Amino acid sequence: MFFQLPEEEVTKVFGRNLKKLRLQRKLSMDKLARMADMELSQIYRIENGRVNAKLTTIAALGKALDIDPNELLKIPNLPHD
Amino acid sequence: MFFQLPEEEVTKVFGRNLKKLRLQRKLSMDKLARMADMELSQIYRIENGRVNAKLTTIAALGKALDIDPNELLKIPNLPHD
Repeated sequence: MFFQLPEEEVTKVFGRNLKKLRLQRKLSMDKLARMADMELSQIYRIENGRVNAKLTTIAALGKALDIDPNELLKIPNLPHD
Repeated sequence: MFFQLPEEEVTKVFGRNLKKLRLQRKLSMDKLARMADMELSQIYRIENGRVNAKLTTIAALGKALDIDPNELLKIPNLPHD
């Protein structure tokens, strides 16, 4: 469950989810940035887990991607370690 | 849908959800603050919609309350206007 992740994993997993959802929709970082009224550099840093995004930024991204919070804040299915 | 809220409503609705969930669990602000390793003043400001919480803060609160993202980031049922 996403909220149970160690703090240092939260931004990384969020970034990976964002990238996956963006690519599923065949959107470039630049296109998503324009849809969410953000800078491309911010999308890049969030996808790389280097930004601890604020709630309104998360909402702007979720709105642009037209998804539920549970789709963006989730632990993806991973192959077995 | 939470992500569709106007930006100025996002922090307000989030704060109201947090307060409701905290009270359902019969937790004081002080108790929740200690559970989430935060300052009481931060809980207070978030519940009042005056803080744009960061992702790791949202996760710490969600972890303390043991809930899903969709429970914390949702539009509550309101009486008809």
